[in-house]
Amino acid sequence: MTSDSESLEERLHQVLGSQTNVTVGTAESCTGGNVAHRITRVAGSSAYFLGGIVSYSNPVKAALLGVPEEVLVNPGAVSDPCARAMAEGARWALGTTLAVSTTGIAGPGGATEFKPVGLVYIALATPDSTVVEEHHFPGDREAIIEASTNRALELLIHAAERLIA
Amino acid sequence: MTSDSESLEERLHQVLGSQTNVTVGTAESCTGGNVAHRITRVAGSSAYFLGGIVSYSNPVKAALLGVPEEVLVNPGAVSDPCARAMAEGARWALGTTLAVSTTGIAGPGGATEFKPVGLVYIALATPDSTVVEEHHFPGDREAIIEASTNRALELLIHAAERLIA
Repeated sequence: MTSDSESLEERLHQVLGSQTNVTVGTAESCTGGNVAHRITRVAGSSAYFLGGIVSYSNPVKAALLGVPEEVLVNPGAVSDPCARAMAEGARWALGTTLAVSTTGIAGPGGATEFKPVGLVYIALATPDSTVVEEHHFPGDREAIIEASTNRALELLIHAAERLIA
Repeated sequence: MTSDSESLEERLHQVLGSQTNVTVGTAESCTGGNVAHRITRVAGSSAYFLGGIVSYSNPVKAALLGVPEEVLVNPGAVSDPCARAMAEGARWALGTTLAVSTTGIAGPGGATEFKPVGLVYIALATPDSTVVEEHHFPGDREAIIEASTNRALELLIHAAERLIA
């Protein structure tokens, strides 16, 4: 049982800190490294966090995560298929059990007719499958980055709990 | 001229935000993604920040940044040669003009006889050369991560100013 005041990264550490089988990686676009930063704020996180890739540009998404060029052209980097490819690519590139990815429009610029500020795709890749969520987060750039980071951490916690159980 | 209240990431944006020739990448160990997070807090940073690699484990340092195995064995991941290889590897892997790297002991665990908590190497790779700094930062884990991040951002700002001038 965890207290309400405990941060999400501390909850992840509670689940994974005392085992040696489940490792974690990240592939971040709109959160820009904040998920990795939050995880590694916790002392001892190196036991399960192997690394992350901040793929802020499309060439880095393609080269380091293997996101197909056709995905980056259409439907584009802010899409369900891109989030999926980023998470699966991170699992492969980093050699982790779990990987979470974020791609979205943190604003205030970058919105298009069909992709408003606050649209964020978050994917979680496990050994069995990959799930993708579409979110529409309110608020400014800072709030959208924070909400995306928190949801990515929650997905990691839930997947880690399932694997450890 | 910049005001004292302006953050380092805002200063970097002032230098690089209105040009298209100089790009930036990161390779982070002890800062765990915080340098990339700070850079990307600023709207419009995608114009010059292409991406980053959080190489929290030695296999990721070797696989994604090309740090030689012999460096990782001796003198080890927290060393001048490793910081240098990380920054140069990030320039190559991310295709950026500049890359900064951090590797150190944020604590409270991980210290050895010759590598105390607070020992951090920070390297900056440019098209011409690579410089490495050795720091001994005081304080707790949070303070060491913060100080390392700030110094990495300062190195990027100075190098960007020289390239733009």
